[in-house]
Amino acid sequence: MDFCNIASLYKDELYNNIIPFWLEKSQDNAYGGYFSCLDRKGEVYDTDKFIWLQGREAWFFAMAYNYIERRPEWLKCAVQGGEFLKKYGHDGMFNWYFSVTRQGDPLVQPYNIFSYCFATMAFGQLYKATGNEEYAEIAKRTFDNILSKQDNPKGIYNKNVNATRPLMNFALPMILCNLSLEIEHLLPKETIDKTIENCIHLIMDRFYRPELGLIVENITPQGELSDSFEGRVLNPGHAIEAMWFIMDLGVRLSRKDLITKATEITLKMLDKGWDDKYGGIYYYMDRKGFPPQQLEWDQKLWWVHVESLISTLKGYQLTGSKECLQWAEKLHDYTWNHFRDNENPEWFGYLNRQGEVLLTLKGGKWKGCFHIPRGLYQAWKTLEKCK
Amino acid sequence: MDFCNIASLYKDELYNNIIPFWLEKSQDNAYGGYFSCLDRKGEVYDTDKFIWLQGREAWFFAMAYNYIERRPEWLKCAVQGGEFLKKYGHDGMFNWYFSVTRQGDPLVQPYNIFSYCFATMAFGQLYKATGNEEYAEIAKRTFDNILSKQDNPKGIYNKNVNATRPLMNFALPMILCNLSLEIEHLLPKETIDKTIENCIHLIMDRFYRPELGLIVENITPQGELSDSFEGRVLNPGHAIEAMWFIMDLGVRLSRKDLITKATEITLKMLDKGWDDKYGGIYYYMDRKGFPPQQLEWDQKLWWVHVESLISTLKGYQLTGSKECLQWAEKLHDYTWNHFRDNENPEWFGYLNRQGEVLLTLKGGKWKGCFHIPRGLYQAWKTLEKCK
Repeated sequence: MDFCNIASLYKDELYNNIIPFWLEKSQDNAYGGYFSCLDRKGEVYDTDKFIWLQGREAWFFAMAYNYIERRPEWLKCAVQGGEFLKKYGHDGMFNWYFSVTRQGDPLVQPYNIFSYCFATMAFGQLYKATGNEEYAEIAKRTFDNILSKQDNPKGIYNKNVNATRPLMNFALPMILCNLSLEIEHLLPKETIDKTIENCIHLIMDRFYRPELGLIVENITPQGELSDSFEGRVLNPGHAIEAMWFIMDLGVRLSRKDLITKATEITLKMLDKGWDDKYGGIYYYMDRKGFPPQQLEWDQKLWWVHVESLISTLKGYQLTGSKECLQWAEKLHDYTWNHFRDNENPEWFGYLNRQGEVLLTLKGGKWKGCFHIPRGLYQAWKTLEKCK
Repeated sequence: MDFCNIASLYKDELYNNIIPFWLEKSQDNAYGGYFSCLDRKGEVYDTDKFIWLQGREAWFFAMAYNYIERRPEWLKCAVQGGEFLKKYGHDGMFNWYFSVTRQGDPLVQPYNIFSYCFATMAFGQLYKATGNEEYAEIAKRTFDNILSKQDNPKGIYNKNVNATRPLMNFALPMILCNLSLEIEHLLPKETIDKTIENCIHLIMDRFYRPELGLIVENITPQGELSDSFEGRVLNPGHAIEAMWFIMDLGVRLSRKDLITKATEITLKMLDKGWDDKYGGIYYYMDRKGFPPQQLEWDQKLWWVHVESLISTLKGYQLTGSKECLQWAEKLHDYTWNHFRDNENPEWFGYLNRQGEVLLTLKGGKWKGCFHIPRGLYQAWKTLEKCK
């Protein structure tokens, strides 16, 4: 791998393809916020606004302004999204809806804690970019809400009878690993340190199962495996994404052991998740090999591959692991050959098992301005450090 | 089509393949009720009990006893499932859980009104089979609960902000068409007549859109189209299944107009839903051709094809439509060639777009002892009437 050349490839793609696409196609100049439902060419096909994706796009453009280049149009794009979120994204108490109409009327109640997480990320970066104290306050109050909901994230919308089969889910501690670094400039050091330590412990000592060599998505509150659909499900992309959050924390805390372990887990999850027949990483698997509940289990998703690429690149850069480098090359090839749209801007998100395009959209309910630009940025910056 | 021979084929498959599979593999002799998570060979891979499928299997065996043959092992199978449901399926007020553990502890709260519908069907047939008044009472009280929940079926578990974009869903009126004939022996004639008239009106005058020639899954309370993900989605199998419920009502009410219209809609939905490239009927589509939200949109599901076969056979038998007969032949061929497992008992449920087996299970969270045996029975009986 010619690291220097490939770093430029990622940078160019970010600057010349992805960022212009979202700047030009997604901003709602009439009502504020962003359209995320964009077809193959970037035309809007639905105007509903999903709070995950509103927060993520505001985060991305503020982050890009803070860390990549101080371009005023990036800041403006971030701030207008933040203003829409501030006005319409929550119920007044910083409980964040799942979705709102184009005009900002609430469509789906605040049942999903990740709407809160992406709002926190957005306002943390917006504060850094503008110094506007109001943004800091929104980030802090939302983060408090997240912590208070940790034990029952869905609250009144939880349909599970927890007394019968209580389970802890991987997603929240995973996101908190990343989120705590995103907002450490806003919170007391003890809060951040405590949150980080707790999340690292849960992920590396509980959700990671040494007896399997794998990370599972749900465990019992006692930290044990559960032999149920939820307890058997693996989401390789999810686990691998978490590993680069852990590597970042390892760098930050100067904990080489964490970096080594995260690299090993990345490789094990890739071995498990790779489709030897058609290439690419499965979306869901059952750890016992039983039929998974998710009908989309064999599909190849953009974020799974982009996040895996980051983890293998960071794993190589931080440990020199040749296996990581080989996987990074394999993932680079698969990703560029299958997800990039060579005829229109931005990248595809959803392929079938065979690697053919399943949905031609460039954005939708779950795909927005996030994994592709963040992934290109992370790959570019990591490749620049590689030798 | 040699109707007589093919009728025998369906009868033989029901008697010699499908019924023995569920009788032998699904009954939980230790705790009662049925296992539905059965792998390719019929081995249990998960013991959770889903109320939809508990109700449906009890219904099927009681119906088979009532209408096909008075075999004591069928009645015994139905009654033991009914007893499990009676004890563990609901909260004491006939609010039916979505799922319970093998032992009967509740896992998922009563958020899903179709758990209620299938429980009503089961106890209606169980009463007919046994004369046990307790079963009649359960069916009646559950049906009352369904009617009282018609306007907001998910109740406290509804995450939509109805004030912003209120929508009516097709599934409940559709099921009520079938359910009202199932339990007419239990309810006052006026209640049944009123329910039937209301459902026919909703389905044929509201969810059916003459401007599109199609049935949509969600409309506004004013009976208009909605340009949103929910308002654009089509589920061809769902709409076509409803058409044989309507044909049955047409026969019952001696309304030839209903039968003719249901036959026409069946043909239009088939034209829209058929995959010209690989064959089979898509699971979900967007009526405007936009990317659907459902990642499994292009998969080929057992129930979609079995229900469509019934509607085309009934359409032919009742109207003599040659187009219906041609479709019935096409669906017969696709179904037997793709869903039947020639090496092991029962049929596959989930194929990818290409028609290859996606999940090898014979039963799971949603597939149980229902569409295949009911479909074989309906096809057999309808073919016997064909000329």
